[in-house]
Amino acid sequence: MKFNPVIEHLKTYEPGKPIELVVREFGIDPADIIKLASNENPFGCSPKAAEAVRGSADLMFRYPDDTMGDLKSALSRRFGVDSSNLIVGAGSDQVIELACRAKLYGGASILQSEITFAMYQIYAAQCGASVIKAPGIAHDLDAMYALYKEHAPEIVFVCAPNNPTGDALDRVDIENFIDAIDRDTLVVLDGAYQEYAAFKDPAKGVDPAALIAKFPHLLYLGTFSKAYGLGGMRVGYGIADEAIIKGLYKLRPPFNVTTLSLVAAGEALKDEAFVQTTLEACFSQMKEYEMFAEEMGIGFIESYTNFITYRLDGIADSTEVCDALLRRGIIVRDLKGYGINAIRITIGKAEENRRFFEAMRQLLENGRQ
Amino acid sequence: MKFNPVIEHLKTYEPGKPIELVVREFGIDPADIIKLASNENPFGCSPKAAEAVRGSADLMFRYPDDTMGDLKSALSRRFGVDSSNLIVGAGSDQVIELACRAKLYGGASILQSEITFAMYQIYAAQCGASVIKAPGIAHDLDAMYALYKEHAPEIVFVCAPNNPTGDALDRVDIENFIDAIDRDTLVVLDGAYQEYAAFKDPAKGVDPAALIAKFPHLLYLGTFSKAYGLGGMRVGYGIADEAIIKGLYKLRPPFNVTTLSLVAAGEALKDEAFVQTTLEACFSQMKEYEMFAEEMGIGFIESYTNFITYRLDGIADSTEVCDALLRRGIIVRDLKGYGINAIRITIGKAEENRRFFEAMRQLLENGRQ
Repeated sequence: MKFNPVIEHLKTYEPGKPIELVVREFGIDPADIIKLASNENPFGCSPKAAEAVRGSADLMFRYPDDTMGDLKSALSRRFGVDSSNLIVGAGSDQVIELACRAKLYGGASILQSEITFAMYQIYAAQCGASVIKAPGIAHDLDAMYALYKEHAPEIVFVCAPNNPTGDALDRVDIENFIDAIDRDTLVVLDGAYQEYAAFKDPAKGVDPAALIAKFPHLLYLGTFSKAYGLGGMRVGYGIADEAIIKGLYKLRPPFNVTTLSLVAAGEALKDEAFVQTTLEACFSQMKEYEMFAEEMGIGFIESYTNFITYRLDGIADSTEVCDALLRRGIIVRDLKGYGINAIRITIGKAEENRRFFEAMRQLLENGRQ
Repeated sequence: MKFNPVIEHLKTYEPGKPIELVVREFGIDPADIIKLASNENPFGCSPKAAEAVRGSADLMFRYPDDTMGDLKSALSRRFGVDSSNLIVGAGSDQVIELACRAKLYGGASILQSEITFAMYQIYAAQCGASVIKAPGIAHDLDAMYALYKEHAPEIVFVCAPNNPTGDALDRVDIENFIDAIDRDTLVVLDGAYQEYAAFKDPAKGVDPAALIAKFPHLLYLGTFSKAYGLGGMRVGYGIADEAIIKGLYKLRPPFNVTTLSLVAAGEALKDEAFVQTTLEACFSQMKEYEMFAEEMGIGFIESYTNFITYRLDGIADSTEVCDALLRRGIIVRDLKGYGINAIRITIGKAEENRRFFEAMRQLLENGRQ
């Protein structure tokens, strides 16, 4: 069976190891496994969202409301934008995919930072596009601009705060960068962790409504997978000028968000108190991670997200550390595949974090003997 | 903002009107609305599936197990195929989309029957492919073969039983047709309603395991949206030779099925008794639809699915009938857009069907006065 030659060379995305897999591979009791690998909200989701889903379980036979009227109205109010400026996807991932398929054809290219969310280049490659990367661990906007002028890519991806490093650009720098880009180049601003950044430092928080009013070439992405604790339900959204939304809608598969996902996201959006508790707990526990790193002499990147990146150069090999933690039932993310000797740890609940510190201390102390 | 010129001319799929929309448009009490438009299972889903989902609502924060190990094992056992012969999609819709994107590029084409599931041509058009249609209300396999020889399409779609007409091909005819197609042409056999067809007439039922053992160019599609009553959860699957599955996997977005959808589908698959009850009730009520049609002089197509198609030529205009029913809170599907003056009615619960008969009788008798 011959396929489009473009797909022959594609790599597939390696997601964080699910608990099920660790149970199967190592025979560890699921209750003893701590998953700090996928930047999930350790507090789960709003109890009101869970309650609403339980109350709607008997509606699973109904196709979803494909207009997504209720959720789009709620997002409209939340962001102060019109429904026509919104598209809801199966995770913001799907909006990235639609953007790639809408813009990338016939020898196109994208521009991104070297170490950033893996799906940009995966979806771009599916469209046969080439990927231009600005070097550096953080987004280097000057380097990105120079590469933009040199290569004239069809899409520029900016991840703020950045995954998997955790650093965040200032709003003013993001705005100046977007403004410098030609209006027919799509700028995708991935705000998956914006709730965290805006909480920690208002200078890192962006206002999608203000941005799209100024920039007709901007697509802002948000998600329910992180602060709202609904990673398993696959709900994200794009906010942009109506012309962009209309283009993406042409490629949107019908019923792309499930009946229960719409219920969960709608309820989650109403429970801002839950999100606040999440954010406070996250940054309070983040301090523990910073203190532990300093104590152990581990370099880390200041994080504006719900994870922290430990750089292990001169200390240990990141892949060996991940494997050793896995055998102890602790799942974190190895960043070797991104080209850095580092691990990314999701900030968990206090007890989960204590177990991580304990295991990590043992590993490093054994390694030094 | 310039997009891929291919998408400029795309039409978007018009799904069955959701109850929410009728509530908004006509101000009808949701409790009074009867939806017989989207071939949902009127009995909902297995109570065990609903119970399992309620018990898992607190897991929505976890990303889905992207290996889908449990569901794939269950499907493996159900169909007697290896896990490597399976891909699970967000509805079988997504598997259609992946197949189109894998096979259609650079002036490709697909072949289908004139009146069949709308998404084949929608996804093909997204890939810039042209669509060749064999004329006729039922699948005319001779005409399809002649067009296949003439145009050498990259994909041939066979929908058995066919949606939106309800008729079904015999297994032996399907097999002979697939056998006559070149092994580098992908044959997609859409079995979304196979449970119904196999129940009514074993000669219409196909065995995916036997088919893929013989035909390396066959992709069989199944779904949890119909007999299993999980239309809102978006779970379908493809069964094929490993080479096809590997190709589709290269384009599959990670986490394409939600955490709760995996739970629901896994439980639904265990509850065969629920499916049997569904099938018996469906065909018992189908007789009422046939008797009503005969009484009113309405032509209908013998159906092997959970819906029936009434042909209204010489009786009424299908669009007017649908609108009049809608004002009475009854949602059915107008097939005018498919080029026939007909309506498609999902077989509902006895009480829902009675209300349909009552309203339809009033409409037609008023029309004749």
